[in-house]
Amino acid sequence: MREVSSQESVSAGVVDLLGVLAYGELSAFDRMAEDARTAPTLAGRAALASMAAAEIGHYTMLERHLAERGVDVEEAMAPFIGHIDDFHMSTAPKSWLESLVKAYVGDGLAADLYREVATWLDEPTKELVLAVLSDTGHSAFAEREVAQAIAADSTVRDRLALWGRRLLGEALTQAQYVVAERDGLAELIVTGTGDLSGIAGLLRRLQQKHHKRMQSLGLG
Amino acid sequence: MREVSSQESVSAGVVDLLGVLAYGELSAFDRMAEDARTAPTLAGRAALASMAAAEIGHYTMLERHLAERGVDVEEAMAPFIGHIDDFHMSTAPKSWLESLVKAYVGDGLAADLYREVATWLDEPTKELVLAVLSDTGHSAFAEREVAQAIAADSTVRDRLALWGRRLLGEALTQAQYVVAERDGLAELIVTGTGDLSGIAGLLRRLQQKHHKRMQSLGLG
Repeated sequence: MREVSSQESVSAGVVDLLGVLAYGELSAFDRMAEDARTAPTLAGRAALASMAAAEIGHYTMLERHLAERGVDVEEAMAPFIGHIDDFHMSTAPKSWLESLVKAYVGDGLAADLYREVATWLDEPTKELVLAVLSDTGHSAFAEREVAQAIAADSTVRDRLALWGRRLLGEALTQAQYVVAERDGLAELIVTGTGDLSGIAGLLRRLQQKHHKRMQSLGLG
Repeated sequence: MREVSSQESVSAGVVDLLGVLAYGELSAFDRMAEDARTAPTLAGRAALASMAAAEIGHYTMLERHLAERGVDVEEAMAPFIGHIDDFHMSTAPKSWLESLVKAYVGDGLAADLYREVATWLDEPTKELVLAVLSDTGHSAFAEREVAQAIAADSTVRDRLALWGRRLLGEALTQAQYVVAERDGLAELIVTGTGDLSGIAGLLRRLQQKHHKRMQSLGLG
């Protein structure tokens, strides 16, 4: 990535976007690291810990990008802490399988979101977002474990399917609050997606990809 | 690192050594990730989370090295879980500063230990240990924070100095149990350090380096 001066300006919308992504990564680390301790096996514990570690790698990239532009990551994250913490509180996993589905679904949703927003951004920010995106995909373990568990027990399957729906619902609820509160972010999305119906289209695409992901987990 | 066949033999002592290091890294991740949630600032939370993430990077390197030699990391770690968990239980930090000192001291002790053991090992294992070692040193934040806190309050200084001594004592206690129980590991150390007095010399060097580290923290 090229050198930039700290004077390089960055719009309020981009600061918001990188701030919400950064706190998303930091809090995902937190929750996955906590959930890792409930793993029934050391392999599971290490796998979820590795997913958590990847989130911190992403966080660090976002932090550095903001710092190079004279923006403090803590300030950028501050407006989003409440909603993201609310999301995690309302979706605290009650079992190891719920933890895995949450990690898998969260990782997938994040990747889809990064892929969408990349197209709206200036070149260096786009490079950043694509670099973060290329490091996702640590969730093969989660996929494998969940597939095995539901193959063995169809009531587990039904419960996890409901859980997946709840995760998406809670994520979209909090996302809507965030966009409603942050003008810069809303403007970035409207400009990026074309218009107000563009936002609806974005949400629809994220939902469709979520449903596909649930299907490939055997939970569709 | 060169390709190796899964038939490449690895001594019981080396399996033990890599196993104890691997579980040390995995459990350090756990504890640091948990302690990160008690951080008074987002910067502190991110800093300790980054230290935790580095441990998982080390764990992954050790796991891969063992797997290439047909050794399952879970089996290699199993004999050491009890003692390492005991260490963490007996040294659960009661404050953010205790967490930071523990992270700093633990990181430093681990680096010293890796540096010592590297000289005993066959070439590919030595390369592995040096690669892990070169990735330590994420603890500058801890050093800075602790230095600030004790500059401001000398009772904090005294309490943390005691805490540092306790950490070393508990670590050496558990280390001695481990060596006493594992013949292969004991043999590796005796061969590596020269003789039984070599073990004593190793422990002395680790203690001396610990004291130096405490001094540079202002806790000596």
